Amino acid sequence: MDLELLCKNACSTKVFLGKLSTGKKNSVLLSVADALCKNAETIIAANAIDLENGKKNNMSEGLLDRLMLNEARIEDIAVGLKKVADLPDPIGEVLEMTRRPNGMTIGKKRVPMGVIGIIYEARPNVTSDAFGLCFKTGNAVILKGGSDAINSNKAIVQVIRQALVENDIPADALQLIESTDRETTTKFMRMNQYVDLLIPRGSAGLIKATVENATIPVIETGTGNCHIYVDKSADLDMALKILVNAKTQRIGVCNACESLVIHKDIINEFLPKAVEALKPFNVDIRGDESAVAVCSDINKATDEDFYKEYLDYIISVKTVETIDEAILHINEHNTKHSETIVTNDYNSSNKFLDEVDAACVYVNASTRFTDGFEFGFGAEIGISTQKLHARGPMGLKELTTSKYIIYGNGQIRE
Amino acid sequence: MDLELLCKNACSTKVFLGKLSTGKKNSVLLSVADALCKNAETIIAANAIDLENGKKNNMSEGLLDRLMLNEARIEDIAVGLKKVADLPDPIGEVLEMTRRPNGMTIGKKRVPMGVIGIIYEARPNVTSDAFGLCFKTGNAVILKGGSDAINSNKAIVQVIRQALVENDIPADALQLIESTDRETTTKFMRMNQYVDLLIPRGSAGLIKATVENATIPVIETGTGNCHIYVDKSADLDMALKILVNAKTQRIGVCNACESLVIHKDIINEFLPKAVEALKPFNVDIRGDESAVAVCSDINKATDEDFYKEYLDYIISVKTVETIDEAILHINEHNTKHSETIVTNDYNSSNKFLDEVDAACVYVNASTRFTDGFEFGFGAEIGISTQKLHARGPMGLKELTTSKYIIYGNGQIRE
Repeated sequence: MDLELLCKNACSTKVFLGKLSTGKKNSVLLSVADALCKNAETIIAANAIDLENGKKNNMSEGLLDRLMLNEARIEDIAVGLKKVADLPDPIGEVLEMTRRPNGMTIGKKRVPMGVIGIIYEARPNVTSDAFGLCFKTGNAVILKGGSDAINSNKAIVQVIRQALVENDIPADALQLIESTDRETTTKFMRMNQYVDLLIPRGSAGLIKATVENATIPVIETGTGNCHIYVDKSADLDMALKILVNAKTQRIGVCNACESLVIHKDIINEFLPKAVEALKPFNVDIRGDESAVAVCSDINKATDEDFYKEYLDYIISVKTVETIDEAILHINEHNTKHSETIVTNDYNSSNKFLDEVDAACVYVNASTRFTDGFEFGFGAEIGISTQKLHARGPMGLKELTTSKYIIYGNGQIRE
Repeated sequence: MDLELLCKNACSTKVFLGKLSTGKKNSVLLSVADALCKNAETIIAANAIDLENGKKNNMSEGLLDRLMLNEARIEDIAVGLKKVADLPDPIGEVLEMTRRPNGMTIGKKRVPMGVIGIIYEARPNVTSDAFGLCFKTGNAVILKGGSDAINSNKAIVQVIRQALVENDIPADALQLIESTDRETTTKFMRMNQYVDLLIPRGSAGLIKATVENATIPVIETGTGNCHIYVDKSADLDMALKILVNAKTQRIGVCNACESLVIHKDIINEFLPKAVEALKPFNVDIRGDESAVAVCSDINKATDEDFYKEYLDYIISVKTVETIDEAILHINEHNTKHSETIVTNDYNSSNKFLDEVDAACVYVNASTRFTDGFEFGFGAEIGISTQKLHARGPMGLKELTTSKYIIYGNGQIRE
């Protein structure tokens, strides 16, 4: 289908979707969840084609596993939609309402964004998750998934659209761009006449390409070069526990720790313990000269190491003379995602919270908590590492905007 | 100076500016205001060069007037800074703070954006206004003004930077890009490594060029194709007052009315009165067929007329059969700025507030109120017509972002 027409069709559903009652939206989500389970066989058959193509194209085992759908995984996807149905509906809330001296009443009302575009890679569960969050917030959604999952995505979208129609909802509340070539994607990124917000989800390359090419407002989601700074006053046992957790509990995620920053006063005591604690996980430790001098097990880091989001069993180690040097190093090298200080010093904790530039700044806790569910939002569409509109984990509220509603009785401007 | 270095220098002031106390910021603003008045002669001399160049280049009288500075106008600019000093400081406010089941406390704290870029045209007062609002919110600011005002802008910026240094504030909290060629501007729009937010202020062309070329997140400010819809149940005298005010009180502004939409049931009674009321202002009225049939004084509108922001004594008139048709027409032609319904019907008012897609939707009041001062914000950096981050008049809060601060005592993720 013509891309512009597709975007126009999404627009044409906006007023309808924006006015849906919470009860109706929730019952539709439950109905869509049931439809996915009932049509699991069809979806699994389409997914099998993607898996076969993936194997032919030498897709890695890890990626094949992320692509694979079975009955249990489709059940999980359906449960995800049911959980979204259970969340409070942010639409319609009036955030502030005041009366002006001239008698006009001005309120700021939470309303849907309108049309949200989501560009993602080979995970077919995103297809249903993104639909659920956008639908609950009264938005139309246009999905552009990766070519590796195109058959799975088509099947899931078809089932959802059919369920929408059966519930008297326009099918165009959810659309999939089926063409997977780069020109279509670039053209889509420039449809700012019809699309209100673009969220890229996936690799750093995908996010960069979106930021560089889009004219639609973009929310950058997450690459994370996250640091743990162990201050001289730190409880070293706590620091060790947090380090091991943030580095090894799950390596392929944006809130994993990629770099350890250590105050020089405690390096001789702490670093050998850290090396020992990371040994069972075969972590490749790459340090600056001072770190290498303390521990011969540590490899020499290059300058580039300190800019890297490894997403692997690798960590860089930087030694600092002062907390100021630590903060400077972090602000220079981080991706503005999540940063932790381990300290027992009141002033150090405040200084770190104030001066580190990141979406989430922690004292004495693992960076792994940066997540919509862990923060209590009950959902997550991504983690914003930019400063406009949303910063940090994004839940339902972040998929809304506001509108001023003004009640007058004939006021004119003098 | 090298553009990248200039942007880096702005970045280097971020931590310092973000931590300034409200008292210090206010005293600096007052000191800058005094410095501008004391150096009025120097500024006026620089402005004289711009005015002379403007005359040579056949600048219109209107533009020359907007460019011109004299002692009274510099005094006004200084008063503007003093008013910003009087406003509450939004920085540091913790918006939400909750304790998670694992004992971590998570707060959402209001912090500065960091570095804000402002691209504007020939109004030298913006130079000081933009500095004041950004400084009060702890942001560094990089200005890119139009070539027509370059000498005035240089003089104002020099005075402000000197005053900053005298107050122990780094001069690079305010910088002016002195090169006025297009390539520099385009290069600046892509400095997203250093600049957190870009606000274009000026013509529709400037805003479009910014949206199309920038990789820095942009807040689009305002073109306004604003409508007044007179419902069949309207108080026609009130409608007339609102129409005349919104169309003629000030024609060159984005919240002026550009189009009148009339329900067919009242067109015979209302339209002749409207034509009569607009006559003293020599308004060129351009209507659809039904409007022309009612009033021979009305010229035939083209399709393009309904998309135009005239900023002139011109108005288009559209006749509709129903309120649904009015809403459809408005959503199709408007620029998402400000829209008014005049009605006495409860359901019509709610329907219009719900379904019209615009930053500000009014019942029974003039669109001319869309303004940071009229809304009670005490300041305005522009009116956002997009949906991300800020929508409608933007005051100090809209120049801030948030940061999650997390207090733990050793929490790790299971």
